[in-house]
Amino acid sequence: MAGLLSNLPNHVRIVEVGPRDGLQNEPDIVPTAVKARYVEMLAASGLSDIEVTSFVNPKRVPQLADAEALFALLPASENISYSALVPNKRGLERALSSGARNIALFTAASETFVESNIGMTISESLAVFRDLLPVAESAGMGVRAYISTAFHCPFEGRISEHAVQRIVGELLDMGVDEISLGDTIGHAVPTEVENLLTSIAPLLPLKCTSCHFHDTRGAALANVLTALELGVAIFDTSSGGLGGCPFAPGAAGNLATEDLILMLDGMGIETGVNVELIAKASRYLSAELGKPLPGKALQALNKSVC
Amino acid sequence: MAGLLSNLPNHVRIVEVGPRDGLQNEPDIVPTAVKARYVEMLAASGLSDIEVTSFVNPKRVPQLADAEALFALLPASENISYSALVPNKRGLERALSSGARNIALFTAASETFVESNIGMTISESLAVFRDLLPVAESAGMGVRAYISTAFHCPFEGRISEHAVQRIVGELLDMGVDEISLGDTIGHAVPTEVENLLTSIAPLLPLKCTSCHFHDTRGAALANVLTALELGVAIFDTSSGGLGGCPFAPGAAGNLATEDLILMLDGMGIETGVNVELIAKASRYLSAELGKPLPGKALQALNKSVC
Repeated sequence: MAGLLSNLPNHVRIVEVGPRDGLQNEPDIVPTAVKARYVEMLAASGLSDIEVTSFVNPKRVPQLADAEALFALLPASENISYSALVPNKRGLERALSSGARNIALFTAASETFVESNIGMTISESLAVFRDLLPVAESAGMGVRAYISTAFHCPFEGRISEHAVQRIVGELLDMGVDEISLGDTIGHAVPTEVENLLTSIAPLLPLKCTSCHFHDTRGAALANVLTALELGVAIFDTSSGGLGGCPFAPGAAGNLATEDLILMLDGMGIETGVNVELIAKASRYLSAELGKPLPGKALQALNKSVC
Repeated sequence: MAGLLSNLPNHVRIVEVGPRDGLQNEPDIVPTAVKARYVEMLAASGLSDIEVTSFVNPKRVPQLADAEALFALLPASENISYSALVPNKRGLERALSSGARNIALFTAASETFVESNIGMTISESLAVFRDLLPVAESAGMGVRAYISTAFHCPFEGRISEHAVQRIVGELLDMGVDEISLGDTIGHAVPTEVENLLTSIAPLLPLKCTSCHFHDTRGAALANVLTALELGVAIFDTSSGGLGGCPFAPGAAGNLATEDLILMLDGMGIETGVNVELIAKASRYLSAELGKPLPGKALQALNKSVC
């Protein structure tokens, strides 16, 4: 008899978002050289995908105002995709001139959240995608799209699968390469993950589907497990569980990269990433920030007990 | 088509172990009146099962030396089982004279762990069960058995399913009412949970099966999800994620009661327990201990954001 967990992916691709999603939410501005060293340490762990910064208005997110300077310091590598979030045409121009080969664009499934986050309606945010995609594509860039608040919104509550479906359909028509479904405030539960993933499965191929869970209530790995059971093999995490969201009241940190790797390692699912080297990068950043990071496995590894 | 998570239990029974498993691991000794107030607040949440203390040698675990005094202070209730851990005949006598109606006995699936924890072999610990069970049964007590290190041992590493199977078989032959399978150091992953539960399923009825996960690496709720998918409907947790184990290097806190309830609430699985009232009890204890508790949902609830 086939077991419950007999049909899991053999390999998971981890998209490390700590340098962007984590550091943009830190109250203090981290020096560019520290960011570069942090990214370099993350890259040494075997990660294939690191979202390193955002070409957002420096006045709006001063934490990431050094995006060009950071890109200039990154070690060249054929095996690693350094990507950046891009909010508009100006951001795309900055990304292009910085040599970024992959970008991420942002929208959300909740009107109120998109409005409070980027001052646009969902339709207006999709119009930005429509403007930028041809330029990015002609420059040979890979394009990922974030759909934030795909499960719950801090303002609107539960988000319907239909709202997400509609956006997924439009994004695929435009030609994005990958869609990351965000549980921005970390309130999703496994049945909701199943409902959303099965409702968009007819539209969205698994190889284009990433899940981006926050661990606000400790259920992030349970949600990962459900997504794995449904064939999803791309997950966004941040080293040490860094992160949160200044525009999302109640969001705690991202799922910690170390927590995900240890569960997948134990289940025999390959990631190609060395958890000790991720923890080393987390410890470096933690020392620079002068505070502990929240990730559970990191705390256990720090006690040399895990 | 039936969904992935279409066959979950409708109701889960939570066994709150914070007062015993949590407080026995606190360096400071908590005053009896504080313990009584904490248990009273937990009881007000709707919990049906609270493990309140241990009738262990006071010299060995001074934190729980006040077991009799605590039992004398507990509010009488028909709807709540106040249970206690009992290590030997002397402990059972103390439990009987204190009016405890339910007890828990202890063994483990790792020889080295049982030896380091209670100075016995597994066989010797089972001989204790054999001595005590008839006395407990004739007094009308319910008897739960803990099998610690059912997945991993801090000294021996991975524990085989056969080792656990053998102990489960012996315990059932003796007539225990419920068996709690402990992931004492919190290193289990969902595939290991599936392997163990399916290997003992032919022996152990689901209504007698409890899972006791620690959240060392953030995977406790993923393990709960797998157990739920296999029909398990009893879980041990501690309010605020209190706990650890002085005899198990590397163990972090128990799965937090609040984290479990919020996931089950979101999935429409009934527990009868009010998460806000559990969090209130956790906050009270946290203030008395003078330190924050580690549970994720508690931290989010404390920020009034979750």
